[in-house]
Amino acid sequence: MSRPRQLHLNAFLMSTGHHEASWRLPESDPYATTSIEHYRNLARIAERGRLDSVFFADSPALWGDIGRRPSGSLEPTVVLTALAAATTRIGLIATASTTYNDPYNLARRFASVDHVSGGRAGWNIVTTATLAAAQNFNRDTLPSHAERYARAEEFLEVSKKLWDSWDDEAVLADKASGTWGDQRLLYPAAHEGEHFQVAGALNVPRSPQGHPVLVQAGSSEDGRAFAAAHAEAVFTAQQTLADAKAFYADVKQRARRAGRDPGGVLVLPGIVPVLGATEAEARELEAELDRLIVPEYAKDQLARQLGLDPSELRLDAELPEHLPSEDEIEGAKSRFTLIVELARRERLTVRELIGRLGGGRGHRTFTGTAEQVADAVVEWFDAGAADGFNIMPAVLPSGLAAFVDQVVPILQARGLFRTEYTGTTLRDHYGLARPANRHGRSRVDV
Amino acid sequence: MSRPRQLHLNAFLMSTGHHEASWRLPESDPYATTSIEHYRNLARIAERGRLDSVFFADSPALWGDIGRRPSGSLEPTVVLTALAAATTRIGLIATASTTYNDPYNLARRFASVDHVSGGRAGWNIVTTATLAAAQNFNRDTLPSHAERYARAEEFLEVSKKLWDSWDDEAVLADKASGTWGDQRLLYPAAHEGEHFQVAGALNVPRSPQGHPVLVQAGSSEDGRAFAAAHAEAVFTAQQTLADAKAFYADVKQRARRAGRDPGGVLVLPGIVPVLGATEAEARELEAELDRLIVPEYAKDQLARQLGLDPSELRLDAELPEHLPSEDEIEGAKSRFTLIVELARRERLTVRELIGRLGGGRGHRTFTGTAEQVADAVVEWFDAGAADGFNIMPAVLPSGLAAFVDQVVPILQARGLFRTEYTGTTLRDHYGLARPANRHGRSRVDV
Repeated sequence: MSRPRQLHLNAFLMSTGHHEASWRLPESDPYATTSIEHYRNLARIAERGRLDSVFFADSPALWGDIGRRPSGSLEPTVVLTALAAATTRIGLIATASTTYNDPYNLARRFASVDHVSGGRAGWNIVTTATLAAAQNFNRDTLPSHAERYARAEEFLEVSKKLWDSWDDEAVLADKASGTWGDQRLLYPAAHEGEHFQVAGALNVPRSPQGHPVLVQAGSSEDGRAFAAAHAEAVFTAQQTLADAKAFYADVKQRARRAGRDPGGVLVLPGIVPVLGATEAEARELEAELDRLIVPEYAKDQLARQLGLDPSELRLDAELPEHLPSEDEIEGAKSRFTLIVELARRERLTVRELIGRLGGGRGHRTFTGTAEQVADAVVEWFDAGAADGFNIMPAVLPSGLAAFVDQVVPILQARGLFRTEYTGTTLRDHYGLARPANRHGRSRVDV
Repeated sequence: MSRPRQLHLNAFLMSTGHHEASWRLPESDPYATTSIEHYRNLARIAERGRLDSVFFADSPALWGDIGRRPSGSLEPTVVLTALAAATTRIGLIATASTTYNDPYNLARRFASVDHVSGGRAGWNIVTTATLAAAQNFNRDTLPSHAERYARAEEFLEVSKKLWDSWDDEAVLADKASGTWGDQRLLYPAAHEGEHFQVAGALNVPRSPQGHPVLVQAGSSEDGRAFAAAHAEAVFTAQQTLADAKAFYADVKQRARRAGRDPGGVLVLPGIVPVLGATEAEARELEAELDRLIVPEYAKDQLARQLGLDPSELRLDAELPEHLPSEDEIEGAKSRFTLIVELARRERLTVRELIGRLGGGRGHRTFTGTAEQVADAVVEWFDAGAADGFNIMPAVLPSGLAAFVDQVVPILQARGLFRTEYTGTTLRDHYGLARPANRHGRSRVDV
C-alpha cells in the first residue's frame, strides 16, 4: 500500500497557446479566443490525459495592443460552464477578481458552476493589478496593493459565510406536509465589515464541494499571507529549482503556522513544455516561435511591467541600470522581481528577455523530448519544489496533446500519476477534504 | 406571399413550475432548482416545439421563507450557457440587475453567452425592487424607483458603448504580417457619467448578434419609458384583454415617439396555461394545485407586496379598505396595482386572491383544453393585445410538454407559428435586425 506521492497536473489554457506568436503558426486558429469549440476540444484532450483540471486566467480589461496577439477572451465562468457540459470529470478553474466583483454575485456564480459541473469548480482569486481594469470600474487610479489585499481578505470572509449560509440538510422536500426547506437551517451572512455589508443567505443551496476549490496565484508578501490563510492550491511562476524549493517551503511553513495542514495547500509552479521527437526538433520549434515574435509590441509591454517608458528600453541592450524598486510597483510585484532577476542573472538583452518572456510570461520553459520533460517534472517534484504543475503549452491544441499523449504516459508508467480518475470532484482529484459547514448540522429549535 | 403575422412564444422556466404548490405534485422533482438536467430537459422540450426562447427571472437575494416552495436558483447566465450546449437553435434569455452589477462585467458576460451560443442570448433588464437585494450589496435601504431607473439608463448607455467597442472587422488574423487585430478599429467606451466611469474597450470581440436582445419587464411609467428607449421585447403581466390592448398600444406608441420602428419592440404578456383533455380535467388540476397551497406563507408575501403587516390581512376577508397608494411603494409598483385591482374588481377574499396569485403571480391563467387555450391565445393576438406570449406553465416539465405537444400544433395548423426554425439567432426568431455598430466600419487612418 505504499503508493508513491502523486503528481497533480493542471492545464492552463490560453487561446492558441502561451507563446505570444503561437497564433501565427499554420496550425493555429486565430479566432480561437471566441471559439467555445476550441476550448471544448482542449478540455477533452486534458480529460483524456486524466489531468486534474483546466484553468483560465482573466482580467476585466482589454490589455495591450490587439495587433500583437489574440486579445480579449470569453468570460471564464461562462467558459467553465460550457466545458462542464463537454466533459465529465476534469476540474474547472477560473480566475475572478475580488477588486472588481461583489461577493454576493461572485460567490453565487461559483456555487452555480459547482452545482452545474457536479462539484468540479475552482476559483483562482486575484486582486487585479492593472490600471486599465481600475479605469473600467469607476476609478482613476489603481488601488494600492495593500488596499486590494485587505478587500480580498474581507471578500473571502463574506464568500465563505455565504457558501455556509445553507446547511447541507436545509432542503427537506417534504411534499406531504408542504414544507420545502427548513428556514432554521439557513444562516444569513449578517456581515458588516469595512468593505462589505451583506445581510442575507445565498440564493442557491450549498454546492457539491461545499465551496469551490480556492486557488491563489500572487507570490508577493501579501499574496503569500493570503495563500496561507485561504488557498487550497497555489499557482506560481518560478524560474529556478532553488527558487521553487524556497517558495514551496515557505508556503508550507506559512500554512502550518496558520494552523492548517500543509498537505491541504498544493503548490503548482507553471511550466511551459516545448516538446519534440528529438531535443533538436523541440529547440527548432522554440526558435521558430521566437522568430515569429514582433518585438516592438513586446517591448512596450515589458516597459509597462517595469514601470518605464518604452523609449528607455533598447532591443539589443540589457535593461537600464536604474529601475524602480519592487516597493514602487503597484502592479504585479512578484512578476516585476522575477523579470528583473532573470535579466540580470543571465545578462539578457531586451530582445533575448522578450523571447524568454514571450514563451510563457516568466514561467519555466522545459524544452526537449517527452523523456526529458518528464525527467524535469520528476526532478522538481522529488526535490520538494512542487506538488504538481500548471502546464502551459506554448502552442494549443498541439502542445497539450503532445504533453498528454507523450509525457503523461511516462509519468503514469513511473507510478506518479493516475491512469484513471478515482473521484468525481476537483477536491477528489486534488486530495482535498470537503469543507464542513461552520454552523454544523445541529438544528436551532425555536 | 401573404403569410399571416406570426406569433412569438417564449417559455418562462421556474423550477417545478409557476404554481407555488407545483413542487408537491407526485411527478415533481423538489430538487429541480439546482438540477441542470431538469433545465436541459425543459429547454429541449421548448426547442422541440420550435419556441422562440426560454427565459429565467432572477434576483440577487434569497426571497421569502424556504419552507414555502423551492427557493434559490442557479445564476441564470450560468444556466443559459449550460443550455446553449444542450440545444442548437432556441433563444436563451436571462434576467440581470442594473442596480447590483457593474456594466463592464455584465456586458462582457452577455457578449460571452452570445458567442458561446452562436447568437442566442437575450438580457431581461431589471432594476430589482427588493430591500433584501439592497441589503446584500452594502445598502441599508432600497434605492428609490427613480434612482434605480436613472442608473439603468446609464448602465445601458455604457453597455451599448462596450458592445460597439470592437468593429465587426477589427480582427484581421493576418499571420503573414504578424498583425492579429487593428487597434484603430477599437472604440474605447471613454464613458464619464454620473454613475459610471468606464474607460476601455470590452475585452471580448463583438458578438454574433452585435449585442444580446434587450428585454424589459417593468410596466410602471419609468419602466415603459425605458422600454420605449431600449427594449426589443417587453414581458408584461396583464389580467384582462382590455388592459392588455391598452398596454400594447401604449408601448408601440411610445416606441414610435422615440423614433423607433414599433415592430422592433415585441409585446409578450405572460400567460399561465393549465391544460386538460377536457375543460373539467384542466379545472381539476388547477383546483388540486390551489388546494396544495399553504396559505400562511402566501399571506406573508402578499402583505409585503402591499406594504402591510401580515396581521392586517385575514384569509377569509377582502383586502383592507385603506391601502398604501402606488406612489408610496418603492418596490414593484405595477405589480402592486395589478394585485389591488384584481382583488377589488372580483371582490376576492385574501384566500381567493392568494389562489389566483399563487398560480402565476398575477399573470393571466388560461385553463381548459388545448383548443380553448389556443383560441384564447389567438384572440389576444388578433385583438392587438400581444405579439406573442411568455408561456408560464403551472407545472414543469409536464405543463410545458402539454403546451408544446398540444397547443403549438394547433397554432401551427392555423399558420400562426413556425413549424421549423428559419434562422439560427434569437434575433432571427424574433424578426429583429442585428444592430449596426455606431462607429460604422470606416477606418480612421492615422
